[in-house]
Amino acid sequence: MAFEFGSVLSAAAISKASRFSGYPPFHFVGGNIDEPTVPVEALADAISKVIRDQGHAMAKYGMNSGPQGYLPLREFVCNCLQGRTGIAATPEEVLLTSGSLQAMDLVNRVLLDKGDVVLLEAANYSGALSRLDALGVDYAGIELDQDGMRMDALERVLSELAEAGRKPKYIYTIPTVQNPTGSVMPVERRREMLALAKAYDVPVFEDDCYADLVFSGERPPAIHALDDDQRVIYCGTFSKTIAPALRVGYLVAPWSLLSSVLPLKTDAGSGALEQMVLAEYLPEHFDDHVSGLLPMLTAKAAALCDALDEHFGESVEYDRPVGGIYLWVSLPENVDTDRLFQVALEQGVEINPGSQWTVDGTANKHRMRLCFGHPPIDNIREGIARLADICFEEFGVPVRSGNVARD
Amino acid sequence: MAFEFGSVLSAAAISKASRFSGYPPFHFVGGNIDEPTVPVEALADAISKVIRDQGHAMAKYGMNSGPQGYLPLREFVCNCLQGRTGIAATPEEVLLTSGSLQAMDLVNRVLLDKGDVVLLEAANYSGALSRLDALGVDYAGIELDQDGMRMDALERVLSELAEAGRKPKYIYTIPTVQNPTGSVMPVERRREMLALAKAYDVPVFEDDCYADLVFSGERPPAIHALDDDQRVIYCGTFSKTIAPALRVGYLVAPWSLLSSVLPLKTDAGSGALEQMVLAEYLPEHFDDHVSGLLPMLTAKAAALCDALDEHFGESVEYDRPVGGIYLWVSLPENVDTDRLFQVALEQGVEINPGSQWTVDGTANKHRMRLCFGHPPIDNIREGIARLADICFEEFGVPVRSGNVARD
Repeated sequence: MAFEFGSVLSAAAISKASRFSGYPPFHFVGGNIDEPTVPVEALADAISKVIRDQGHAMAKYGMNSGPQGYLPLREFVCNCLQGRTGIAATPEEVLLTSGSLQAMDLVNRVLLDKGDVVLLEAANYSGALSRLDALGVDYAGIELDQDGMRMDALERVLSELAEAGRKPKYIYTIPTVQNPTGSVMPVERRREMLALAKAYDVPVFEDDCYADLVFSGERPPAIHALDDDQRVIYCGTFSKTIAPALRVGYLVAPWSLLSSVLPLKTDAGSGALEQMVLAEYLPEHFDDHVSGLLPMLTAKAAALCDALDEHFGESVEYDRPVGGIYLWVSLPENVDTDRLFQVALEQGVEINPGSQWTVDGTANKHRMRLCFGHPPIDNIREGIARLADICFEEFGVPVRSGNVARD
Repeated sequence: MAFEFGSVLSAAAISKASRFSGYPPFHFVGGNIDEPTVPVEALADAISKVIRDQGHAMAKYGMNSGPQGYLPLREFVCNCLQGRTGIAATPEEVLLTSGSLQAMDLVNRVLLDKGDVVLLEAANYSGALSRLDALGVDYAGIELDQDGMRMDALERVLSELAEAGRKPKYIYTIPTVQNPTGSVMPVERRREMLALAKAYDVPVFEDDCYADLVFSGERPPAIHALDDDQRVIYCGTFSKTIAPALRVGYLVAPWSLLSSVLPLKTDAGSGALEQMVLAEYLPEHFDDHVSGLLPMLTAKAAALCDALDEHFGESVEYDRPVGGIYLWVSLPENVDTDRLFQVALEQGVEINPGSQWTVDGTANKHRMRLCFGHPPIDNIREGIARLADICFEEFGVPVRSGNVARD
């Protein structure tokens, strides 16, 4: 009797969600951040003030600022980027978005057609890969090392494409706290990337979502800041420093591109309330707030590494994080992390299997990404201990954990 | 020297925005609402309280509620709809969206492929039409009268399509304060629509964005409430009652459809702050707030009609609004409202030309939509006076305005 929607779904409607049932006890995924550090008191004060002062303007789509978003926040983004990244941008070159995911969607929408090709780091943010898949866009993964995307590999692929009469629509890079490997690309390599981009006449799409979370507080200039040709599109976010659920990101691009992006942003504006509260809160508080996060994240990263050392011992390899909220871990080759993901989830531990964070999934079948931004330290320790037991049960490694030998 | 983005744009990137330069002095477009009535003080109190209580959960995408949005707000939506529309829905059947525009986008994404056909009212929301155009979806406009979509016309088109072996993916209707004509579909006709939908096995997509703004406070039950077959998808919003810049709408659909929608909502959640503030503010204040809007809107509608009567006299025809924030006006046949739009905008008056609010643009070339929600009453009067002068200068009508004969 009920109408059968299943018989009229579009070609895009390929998956079905299950009902939300909360989070597993040990949740090493998702880019969530530390709950206690969300600055709720200061945000409450800020929002209370600014909504009384400015809130009537919410009666208009775009308030008094138009489609690029709340002007005071765009002004803050410009000032902030100048200081932190070296980028010199004007508010006209900033578009406030509903998270950096929307920035990525808009860049894709304005530049990509089915059959285009893009280049990106060989291990990458699963959300970037799934978007390219959904768009029918080809992509080639460029080899990484401990300093990020390798320029010899980039040059080789650009050259091969050129010989085949093709040119990538952009080079997508996460140069500062690469997702998932955590590397920070040195400045010399950034300049090499720009030189190659120029030689092959290709733009660069720089994603700096985690860049504020370098533990030392020191970071190279953004690729955008080193560029003289206006060929870099840049995106960032406040999701990882303030709170992901706010959904405030930004795209920085020349007006020549933004003017083509704006007609494609058909949502009648990103949320005004969060833009107003951040414009009020951030100028006074952002630097101190971020500085306050870094020791906490350093401690969580250390706790995760210590727990891995204790429970997995020689069975894992990783580079200690220098920033961000995740760790990229290599397990022995016989460990299939897709399988590990499944059995671990059944037992209350969620990890990111390497295959979903890789252009060529098979290369990272024995790797996993573990997010440490959200769980408290004791939960990290307990979760890794449990993961080691689960892994041993399934794959026979690790044999030793702490003082206990498994059999 | 600067990279030429113009040479690599996608096929979708067909328009360029101009730089935002604020609003013209007389701005009869856009669905904006009355600025003084945005309840900033009460919203400030609400947000202050709830962000202190709940704000730490913003550290997680989806907070503690998951991808369908903040559960307390979904619960409010269910209660509210039960009382105002007769809809009996559970929070599981509600998806909070970034405005009802996103609800529409998601319905389109889950159901429509290029080449599909949908049916909708012959005069319609320009945003709905532009979305269908962008998707390459066919659509047929069903004739309207003073009670909304005509069921004889609907039956005829359904039958013609069936004979051609085609079935529309949905019937899109704005039955309560139709946009742009302002009609309210009587309950008998709603039942007829459902009977036809059942006979032809087609779902209905009911858009109730303006339905809270019926001036008398009385409205027929939603089509969704009259349906026994779970064939109605319903969307609504708080944009027109609280504030458009908040971006909070909702989709109500059976879980069998929502479970297919959720994987397509790839934005990692709609904004949490606005969902929290509305969940705190609305239960106590929504009814009084909406009741408070109605006299103001009634007065603005009357001011607009009076101004049209005074300055356009016999040259216009319209039905007095019974709700909402816009008026659909017919001018003499020699008035081309696309041209009127252009000349008026140059002189500081912005209107919606009928061609953009119509499936078959030519049918409404002499009509216009005027939004009265945002401008103050004196601005409405002055703007209409100016529009009459502009119209006379361009088209020779109206000859008389007030006590003055033009020549």
